[in-house]
Amino acid sequence: MTRLFNDPARFTDDMITGFAAAHPEHVRAVPGGVVRARPTPAGKVAVLTGGGSGHYPAFCGVVGPGFADGSVIGDVFTSPSAARARSVAEAAEAGGGVLFLFGNYAGDVMNFGLAARQLTGDGIPAHCFAVTDDIASAPADQTARRRGIAGGFVVFKTASAAAEEGAPLEDVIRVAEHTNARTRTLGVAFDGCTLPGGETPLFTVPEGRLGLGLGIHGEPGVSEDALGTAEELARTLVTGLLADRPVDAGDGGRVAVVLNGLGATKYEELYVLWGAVVRLLDDAGLTPVRPEVGELVTSLDMAGCSLTLTWLDDELERLWRAPADTPAFRRGALTEPPAGTTADTTAADTAVRNAEAPRRRDRAAAASGAAAEAAEVAVHALRAARDVLHRDAEALGRLDAVAGDGDHGRGMCKGVDAALAAAEKAHAERLAPAAVLTAAGDAWAAEAGGTSGALWGAALRALGAVLPADRAPGREDLASAAMEALTAVTSLGGAEVGDKTLVDALAPFATAFAMRLRAGAPVAEAYASATAEARTAAENTATLRPRLGRARPLADRSVGTPDPGATSLAAVLTAVANLPTTTGSDAV
Amino acid sequence: MTRLFNDPARFTDDMITGFAAAHPEHVRAVPGGVVRARPTPAGKVAVLTGGGSGHYPAFCGVVGPGFADGSVIGDVFTSPSAARARSVAEAAEAGGGVLFLFGNYAGDVMNFGLAARQLTGDGIPAHCFAVTDDIASAPADQTARRRGIAGGFVVFKTASAAAEEGAPLEDVIRVAEHTNARTRTLGVAFDGCTLPGGETPLFTVPEGRLGLGLGIHGEPGVSEDALGTAEELARTLVTGLLADRPVDAGDGGRVAVVLNGLGATKYEELYVLWGAVVRLLDDAGLTPVRPEVGELVTSLDMAGCSLTLTWLDDELERLWRAPADTPAFRRGALTEPPAGTTADTTAADTAVRNAEAPRRRDRAAAASGAAAEAAEVAVHALRAARDVLHRDAEALGRLDAVAGDGDHGRGMCKGVDAALAAAEKAHAERLAPAAVLTAAGDAWAAEAGGTSGALWGAALRALGAVLPADRAPGREDLASAAMEALTAVTSLGGAEVGDKTLVDALAPFATAFAMRLRAGAPVAEAYASATAEARTAAENTATLRPRLGRARPLADRSVGTPDPGATSLAAVLTAVANLPTTTGSDAV
Repeated sequence: MTRLFNDPARFTDDMITGFAAAHPEHVRAVPGGVVRARPTPAGKVAVLTGGGSGHYPAFCGVVGPGFADGSVIGDVFTSPSAARARSVAEAAEAGGGVLFLFGNYAGDVMNFGLAARQLTGDGIPAHCFAVTDDIASAPADQTARRRGIAGGFVVFKTASAAAEEGAPLEDVIRVAEHTNARTRTLGVAFDGCTLPGGETPLFTVPEGRLGLGLGIHGEPGVSEDALGTAEELARTLVTGLLADRPVDAGDGGRVAVVLNGLGATKYEELYVLWGAVVRLLDDAGLTPVRPEVGELVTSLDMAGCSLTLTWLDDELERLWRAPADTPAFRRGALTEPPAGTTADTTAADTAVRNAEAPRRRDRAAAASGAAAEAAEVAVHALRAARDVLHRDAEALGRLDAVAGDGDHGRGMCKGVDAALAAAEKAHAERLAPAAVLTAAGDAWAAEAGGTSGALWGAALRALGAVLPADRAPGREDLASAAMEALTAVTSLGGAEVGDKTLVDALAPFATAFAMRLRAGAPVAEAYASATAEARTAAENTATLRPRLGRARPLADRSVGTPDPGATSLAAVLTAVANLPTTTGSDAV
Repeated sequence: MTRLFNDPARFTDDMITGFAAAHPEHVRAVPGGVVRARPTPAGKVAVLTGGGSGHYPAFCGVVGPGFADGSVIGDVFTSPSAARARSVAEAAEAGGGVLFLFGNYAGDVMNFGLAARQLTGDGIPAHCFAVTDDIASAPADQTARRRGIAGGFVVFKTASAAAEEGAPLEDVIRVAEHTNARTRTLGVAFDGCTLPGGETPLFTVPEGRLGLGLGIHGEPGVSEDALGTAEELARTLVTGLLADRPVDAGDGGRVAVVLNGLGATKYEELYVLWGAVVRLLDDAGLTPVRPEVGELVTSLDMAGCSLTLTWLDDELERLWRAPADTPAFRRGALTEPPAGTTADTTAADTAVRNAEAPRRRDRAAAASGAAAEAAEVAVHALRAARDVLHRDAEALGRLDAVAGDGDHGRGMCKGVDAALAAAEKAHAERLAPAAVLTAAGDAWAAEAGGTSGALWGAALRALGAVLPADRAPGREDLASAAMEALTAVTSLGGAEVGDKTLVDALAPFATAFAMRLRAGAPVAEAYASATAEARTAAENTATLRPRLGRARPLADRSVGTPDPGATSLAAVLTAVANLPTTTGSDAV
């Protein structure tokens, strides 16, 4: 379990401080993560790795010459927010554009995607690439749905090496795609890990058993088997990977190989396993090129390991072998001298300050009297949401621990606290409802991170966008606002009704609310009956088998448990329904 | 726990195979361990690290240019035998002499000491240096009794860098001594680890507690405390080290620092802790120089960490900063190109082959008829020892698990199996009793390794050395043989009666046996009554508080449990006493 921390809520901040202090010759802390100690050379593509922390040396341990230009660091097992991604990108970019590289998880896809769109809108060409190497997470004909695990290391390495050679952004993206298409990983878990401050592990594996394909956050795998000898495990892993050999793997028999320990499965064990793996690869006519045996993508102190194969061609072999010099990984000799801690960082510092400045678009309009009342209601609603989320935080965490990583309650509290503070500040400045809700949404997404943070942030922004600045909102305004929020969430998250996500509660609420308002019902009545439908729908998610999201691609163990996102949404809607300002008037 | 292995008895061999296969550019496997892929430059001192495995990257992970020339690899948590040390040294040495570097544990001191004496006798100047950095293992006025833990990394690094600069053997030894004198480590444990094939951990720490100074094999520490915040732990470690600041630390405020994770305490946690450590060092006026935060000396998947400070002077700072290129640790840029796998290894191969050839001194003499009968009895005795040790192996392991690492039964079985096979072979060649017992002793020490392996090997050799080759041994021969065996054991191991070691059973046996024989008693009667005394003495070790040995410097938790070494000796003596050849005749 994780034992060393001060305040669990500060774990990642404290970790970044210590990491940067330990490696001044390689990295420099910036808001949202780290960048190289020496600025990215002018014109070079800035390659940024990122994701939740808890996976060191992924992702920040591979920042330095020959590898990444920076890393966006989220809370443990939680996607960093788009604001953090933007901040690190603006500190690292040097005129060649930005490529975000991360594993294929809903929260990361959303937040890095948002950041890339915002950067591109600001004139910085930015793209995303999500690694999909985990063959256990979806069948071979649905590779795009696969998760990213330790094979990301190879994708990050080759793409970074291409950028270091001076390749333009489209070429670096091509190398990432090409490497990913030729990379396959299969992992096993022997036991789970515990989050900082957590009392119990995220998941467990029975003694003497292994979870084949169990994900690095405890996502369900393809089967549970008896734990045999190291030779038997080597056969399982090699056979599984060869059966999923990429169609375009070419004729070559040369492979990059990563035998990765997840944290508590130690080096000597990995070497015992490696001895068997290398014999089986030889039997299959495959030659390992610069294999890596060790801890490259961990999962706190989870027990288990994974084997990655990347079928190389000449270009990929050159890039895989290219020198690199980072805190956790070094290869070959680099000509660039190690950087001091006094590198010229003026330009980058300026970019960080720019990123830190709140984005003020659409916020300047002052609210008229009636609109100011609507903004007041929004602040009251957020206050009610805060109260109920703090009250239910532990229960929400327990629901989330069944199929996810148990941090839903904590994440919602972080988000709503930040959102309320931002909304109160905007309201005190007499901004319009749209500006108040945009501020709240941005703050929620930035502070909470993760999937739910991105979704709640997007929903609040969409909600506010259609509200008038000069009058009290009417029935049609409110109906539109609800439907816009639903559209924002489904288009960002990709979930549909029945996927066991918060959409299962949001969709019936928004459609019922809009329908009844448009049928002429009073606002309070329409809201109350729509909320009742959302509550019922949230409870009904207990019967569903989840299909989407980081922790859930093949899950069925959460059947019988309501979805935590739908449950927290229903709780917030109910708390708002009980506000005097909502029930007692037609103002909202 | 340790889960990946084939046959637990083959764990280390399999590990070495996989390790060498993963790092052909750095290392090459030789009998007993590994050496650099490229031969040690002519005239350079060969620096060899070593000890039991289970501590990766200690000790074999730091072999390569700028660091060690080779590493002697024992079984998990078991000192390698002198034969293994000699084999690796002969493969690595290049005319500049040999320095063995290891932690201060009884088995390592014995086996490396023996190897160094044998090498020196063969014309290869060889020395030993045992690291004593663990301040929790003995008070400041008894630093020579302290154990070696993660501070060994700094000692190995500076001594290796001095050798790489071309320093002669006496200078390299001086650097090791000087670094060790300025190096202090304090560690904590949160939970124990499990040996390959083991069912239960070697030790446990209650949830929410920490063992301050608990050793890396579970050796008792100085106290058990509540586990607080990372900042509190940082304060405990830094304060403890500063209170034990070496007297000759000089005025300088520059320190090499190692914050070491033991296996299951992961990187993010270590960085959180490092953030607090670095502030406290700054408060104390100390500047960390190229700090290392990570896993450098592990203990399988033990949970815990340690902090090491080495007060630097100009020479030590230069050596600490010097470049190195090894499988697990790289620093700076080396001009030497990485070696291929086809390096010219003819000279080294020859040395290995020489080391593998059995040492034939004193073995050539053929036994006469009566002496052949004595050799036959020796073989019968070893067979009886084998039967009883295999029968009792599990019980001996349980005794050893109380204060040691639970492998006594397994180690004795490995030793006696090898000894019996060697003795049978020597007897089939009609060699004299001395040669038969020397072969048995050498095989026991080489196969079993560890403390007990070295002691039983020495005892069998000493026993045989005084037996005549041309006649049946008489009473005086047997009395001398028993006393010689006792002397060999006490001079090699340094234990006295009352230290809770096998000497507690061996001394009463040998003295009673010799006294009764010299008083004219029949051999069988003298043997039987001496054996009875040994049995009683072995049982009485339950009341003793151990004072010696790797796992026991401050132990008191084994009070109430007999010493496993004394118990196994008494069992063997009893089994031999029950042999018809022993009881039925005076031949032995």
